[in-house]
Amino acid sequence: MASLEKAIQSIGLLDQKAMKAARERQDSLTKPLGSLGRLEELSIRVAAIRGEAMPRLEHKAIIVMAADHGVVAEGVSLYPQEVTPQMVRNFLNGGAGINVLARQVGARVVVVDMGVAATLEPHPCLVSKKVALGTGNMRRGPAMTREQALTAVDAGLEVVERELEKGLDIIGTGDMGIGNTTASSAITAAIVGEPVARVTGRGTGIGDRQLAHKVMVIEEVLKLNQPDAKDGLDVLTKVGGFEIGGLVGVMIGAAAHRIPIVIDGFVSGAAALIATRMAPQLRDFLIAAHVSAERGHRVVLKHLGLKPLLDLEMRLGEGTGAALAIFVVEAAVKALAEMASFAEAGVSQAERKAE
Amino acid sequence: MASLEKAIQSIGLLDQKAMKAARERQDSLTKPLGSLGRLEELSIRVAAIRGEAMPRLEHKAIIVMAADHGVVAEGVSLYPQEVTPQMVRNFLNGGAGINVLARQVGARVVVVDMGVAATLEPHPCLVSKKVALGTGNMRRGPAMTREQALTAVDAGLEVVERELEKGLDIIGTGDMGIGNTTASSAITAAIVGEPVARVTGRGTGIGDRQLAHKVMVIEEVLKLNQPDAKDGLDVLTKVGGFEIGGLVGVMIGAAAHRIPIVIDGFVSGAAALIATRMAPQLRDFLIAAHVSAERGHRVVLKHLGLKPLLDLEMRLGEGTGAALAIFVVEAAVKALAEMASFAEAGVSQAERKAE
Repeated sequence: MASLEKAIQSIGLLDQKAMKAARERQDSLTKPLGSLGRLEELSIRVAAIRGEAMPRLEHKAIIVMAADHGVVAEGVSLYPQEVTPQMVRNFLNGGAGINVLARQVGARVVVVDMGVAATLEPHPCLVSKKVALGTGNMRRGPAMTREQALTAVDAGLEVVERELEKGLDIIGTGDMGIGNTTASSAITAAIVGEPVARVTGRGTGIGDRQLAHKVMVIEEVLKLNQPDAKDGLDVLTKVGGFEIGGLVGVMIGAAAHRIPIVIDGFVSGAAALIATRMAPQLRDFLIAAHVSAERGHRVVLKHLGLKPLLDLEMRLGEGTGAALAIFVVEAAVKALAEMASFAEAGVSQAERKAE
Repeated sequence: MASLEKAIQSIGLLDQKAMKAARERQDSLTKPLGSLGRLEELSIRVAAIRGEAMPRLEHKAIIVMAADHGVVAEGVSLYPQEVTPQMVRNFLNGGAGINVLARQVGARVVVVDMGVAATLEPHPCLVSKKVALGTGNMRRGPAMTREQALTAVDAGLEVVERELEKGLDIIGTGDMGIGNTTASSAITAAIVGEPVARVTGRGTGIGDRQLAHKVMVIEEVLKLNQPDAKDGLDVLTKVGGFEIGGLVGVMIGAAAHRIPIVIDGFVSGAAALIATRMAPQLRDFLIAAHVSAERGHRVVLKHLGLKPLLDLEMRLGEGTGAALAIFVVEAAVKALAEMASFAEAGVSQAERKAE
């Protein structure tokens, strides 16, 4: 708890001086003013987060956190629970979507077992932070104890510390866990206050009847557990997941170290809702990668006040949207650093016309 | 003319067999069905264009075509004409936005002088296809002769042939030319049939009064020249530009060789309007990189029936949007080729639920 409090307190403000220097540099580069659009904003935001006028993004990591959910006993998912450990192995073997996209963007994939409901063989690339063999069934009671929630968040902080040692300039978040869109919808409904049906989607691809059932289950879960929307940790405890708790810790830890956090889709968004409840100033360190096709994600982004970079109708999770967006962030930062100025290139500036 | 006719006739259909094989492979990969969204569609489209179930995009080129426009005498731009050759030098020195983004995506930049109004020093990376020292002022008469228009298109075909020798799996289009949004707006109004004011934007950043003047100039240009909307070459001749003609040739040549063409923003879009008038079957080979902030680009994309991959409020041209989009296309193709299947990874498939 001490380290969590300390991390939250050490989240700083955007660096106004770096932001101003980046803005001035953007305006000196060989292009019409503002013509790189959101790339310009992004480069300035990253400068402000890093506290450097010309930040570099050399070390990139996608943190993929995996865990299981007791609520799958209620028939909310299309896939059996055994898929969670199977996909973790797929991540470790390099065959999943996130492996392909992370390779392309030059990011390392950090796979964290936060609470998979199976004993995973040790693997040099697997970080074990298992809190328990999956959460409890939140239709019968809280998903976890408050102590477990704190343990999960602390694990996220520790993962960031560990990755910092290897060099870390930007983080992408990712998730794997059969049943975790159910937890994410419950979190979103609890924190944003929207009706469950508006923030609950098809997850891996359930049909109409199973979707109606999923909505009913989440409504019962919320009625039973009564999460306190003002207390992020209470929401995590009652209707969250271990991987979601871990991602909350990753976001807090990254922000404390002024690392830009590219949040992936709906599950990462639910974690961001909790993280910004616990540390509102964290929001300035978040970059929304994309808007997922999963229903409810737009509501999350709106509540966070974040505009997604991409809209490619993806809904895979794992950090796949974050990987693509990291490329865009890197493009932004490289344009800022590497483009020639009008003076350097000997290019004439705009003629001032009287309007 | 013979080679142009031949190129148009050799543009084939999408390869249904490769498309089907790619679709089947996508559905076998370790992810919920369809969860990579537009990346899946894209990979299937590229397979269909290339005629290969698992296409590779090893050799990437951004073709940046530059030329000047006589219509700048009418005060339609914020920048003086000398900026065109200055920016060409910037491209050759690697300091422009397109250089930075192309480097990031691993694409070579091919700079083509299609008709810059200055004599450019020879440079190993500059391809000279100069048709003339800029177009004529189309407020006084046609921008070029029909023969010049054909020469420009032929030059684009030749550039593709030349690049094929170096290896070429995907092309991005780019443009540079002070005044070329004026030509592009005239082309769009002529072909799409929308009022000039609806398809004319601020280009490099003109203010309200200059924009109203630009609209008036384009209206007069169209009234004077009466381009025939059904004849793409006539539109190019009367209200086009040499770089736009070159890009028309690039698109036709690339499609003839089954190379996917990632079209950049408004100016490339205007070229695509002409190219698809000359060769309607070309459309299937086009991928719209992004929607530019330049007014009129949405109209162009709608007319072409293309949905842009990105919307980052960019309006720089040069192929910068195309460079970013090539990364997305590559991500799509790599996911198709490199992800493990359910069988390979030993991951359980979805449970079939009775609905």
